[in-house]
Amino acid sequence: MNSIFEKTKSLFQLPTDTVYLNGNSLGPLPKNLPAHINNLLLDKWGKLLTAGWNQDNWITQPIDVGNKIAKLLGVKKGQVAVGDTLSIKLYQALFSAVKSNSNRKIILSDSSNFPSDLYIADGLVKTLDKALVINIVEPNDIYDAINDQVAVVYLSHVDYKTSRKHDITKLSAKAKSCGARTVWDLAHSVGVIDLKLSESNVDFAVGCTYKYLNGGPGSPGFIYVSPELIDNAELTFQGWMGHRAQFSFEPNYYPANGINKMLVGTQSVIAMASLNFALNIFELVEMHLVRKRSIELTDLLIESLKPLCPPLNLESPSRACCRGSHVAYSFTNAYELTQALISHGVIGDFRAPNLIRFGINPLYLDEADITKAAKIIKSTIQNRKWDLSKYKTRNYVT
Amino acid sequence: MNSIFEKTKSLFQLPTDTVYLNGNSLGPLPKNLPAHINNLLLDKWGKLLTAGWNQDNWITQPIDVGNKIAKLLGVKKGQVAVGDTLSIKLYQALFSAVKSNSNRKIILSDSSNFPSDLYIADGLVKTLDKALVINIVEPNDIYDAINDQVAVVYLSHVDYKTSRKHDITKLSAKAKSCGARTVWDLAHSVGVIDLKLSESNVDFAVGCTYKYLNGGPGSPGFIYVSPELIDNAELTFQGWMGHRAQFSFEPNYYPANGINKMLVGTQSVIAMASLNFALNIFELVEMHLVRKRSIELTDLLIESLKPLCPPLNLESPSRACCRGSHVAYSFTNAYELTQALISHGVIGDFRAPNLIRFGINPLYLDEADITKAAKIIKSTIQNRKWDLSKYKTRNYVT
Repeated sequence: MNSIFEKTKSLFQLPTDTVYLNGNSLGPLPKNLPAHINNLLLDKWGKLLTAGWNQDNWITQPIDVGNKIAKLLGVKKGQVAVGDTLSIKLYQALFSAVKSNSNRKIILSDSSNFPSDLYIADGLVKTLDKALVINIVEPNDIYDAINDQVAVVYLSHVDYKTSRKHDITKLSAKAKSCGARTVWDLAHSVGVIDLKLSESNVDFAVGCTYKYLNGGPGSPGFIYVSPELIDNAELTFQGWMGHRAQFSFEPNYYPANGINKMLVGTQSVIAMASLNFALNIFELVEMHLVRKRSIELTDLLIESLKPLCPPLNLESPSRACCRGSHVAYSFTNAYELTQALISHGVIGDFRAPNLIRFGINPLYLDEADITKAAKIIKSTIQNRKWDLSKYKTRNYVT
Repeated sequence: MNSIFEKTKSLFQLPTDTVYLNGNSLGPLPKNLPAHINNLLLDKWGKLLTAGWNQDNWITQPIDVGNKIAKLLGVKKGQVAVGDTLSIKLYQALFSAVKSNSNRKIILSDSSNFPSDLYIADGLVKTLDKALVINIVEPNDIYDAINDQVAVVYLSHVDYKTSRKHDITKLSAKAKSCGARTVWDLAHSVGVIDLKLSESNVDFAVGCTYKYLNGGPGSPGFIYVSPELIDNAELTFQGWMGHRAQFSFEPNYYPANGINKMLVGTQSVIAMASLNFALNIFELVEMHLVRKRSIELTDLLIESLKPLCPPLNLESPSRACCRGSHVAYSFTNAYELTQALISHGVIGDFRAPNLIRFGINPLYLDEADITKAAKIIKSTIQNRKWDLSKYKTRNYVT
């Protein structure tokens, strides 16, 4: 098995003398991607010009790339559309979910959801129906809070802070039995967890592609809609790429069949090509092997850092079954520690007020990386190798 | 003056032995853009990784690039946000426009508006308020149809088919005097018309950047909101990039000041960098010179093709003041003619059922190109150099 991951690791350009534990924020550059994009620019845009829409299949990219993501989600080809941003895809999914259950008025979420997912829901609710309420409970209380009053269960699969992973199958089953829809945000799980959305009876799922999928900074979002719901899914974005015949310029909007109706406007061909290229790496591995290795490596990191707890405090679940692929610790000077570690070649990231996260992508990290990182973390903490005076301005961005 | 345009022309990679008259669909590749993107991929994404958000200013790109577009629109820096797609920006602008005038129930548009603009409006209306109606009149009747019942005047500045140009100043003034908002789609005018949105009292304007701005296939949309309306503009997309402090992860949404509140999700850094690079070419010229030259060249084409009318029929206004920068003709076998011209090195495009369009971007086309194109069009038509049997499948895409 390891030889597969040696192979995948060799396909990335990783920063030298560095252990990159921030792929949960932005995946690294696939080595041959610049040459691929250069060819697209020079030979496709440059020479084909508008003919590229047909001859280089730009027009079908959002579904073609979606088909590669479908494999990672455990769904069929033709069920995933790529485009826009996660924010827009969340809005689109939540709109259709609410509309498909419009006699109910509760959107159920939890306090660990990514804040921007809640911003999007709040904006949609204010627009759509003032009778709708967003009910936010603690993550552990979600299961019990799902009942036959709930229109939509709206959750992040993996908590961006603690890495706590919801039981997507169990919660989706409860939702289904109560007649509630599910909208899952997979931003922190797609590409590291062996998802089986079809088996799990998920209704809607969305995600971004710049984290564990390595599509590049700001690469597009995606949306999955279950086959039971797609035909009757109501749309608020009647975008021309989702029209049944967008180039006949009909005066009225008629949605395309299947997931194509979730396409909206014209997508960046360059951004889509970058993602498409990065996804080829996933053709080499099976997701259950990625998940297995993610567990081995996150377990190894947690085990290696145990002697440091406290002053480090593990904020992620210690049991791998309940965890995504990043590991989070609280620490009094977490910001300063993050900066000191970066200067010593271990790139993690900081989340206010006191959290440091280490993201582990098995496609390019191995035991030697984890051991090396743990050693540097240990010596940095034990020797208090940070300078509080150096970091007055907390200019942290991602 | 021509030396400026010789300079700008030299900055594009144009297809050899070809006159490219389809830049109103997709602008050509700026010559040094591939090297610029290659550097972004290798040295910024590849080496800076997440630090690129700050160190390479990815985080401020949507406004920085917007500032370059602001110059083309005749508005101030800090008034334009780049991102998403034209479809999403239309939705966003129309939402805020309608909400700012919510006691009125009429959206006024015309029959020459791009069909997808009307799809977007229809989708929004169905979501927002069933009392809203979209009133569609003939283009020449718009002025008289603006009255104090109208909430929003929702128009394309230049007709994508005929190139007829609305008088944006006159119509915006009438709208303002009647208390109606304006939303202008500038897809077919930005980059070739010397827009003065501030002077023209435009409320909202949106556009795409892959046509006359040469940002690349599917490059992002943009939105302008007038300073009088931005502070109170209501949002339906509460995206995290539009939050006043997106990285403090506050539980509630508080919009950023100014145009930043119109930012939604994380944008493709590569797509944005491509557009940013292409816009540098506009730093070399003043828009009134571009417009002047656009008129000279479109006039020259119309004059040169006069002997062919009929069987060609000019469908664009003959007076340059009422026209954008493409010229459209109807022709019985317009599809076959378009294909035949492409095979003879003149790239225009076809619009069903019988229209052929020639787009003229003065940044890379000159008199010699127009004369050459006219000569080829003439000989193709006079010798009926097309083969009807060759084009049974009309696989036209853009």
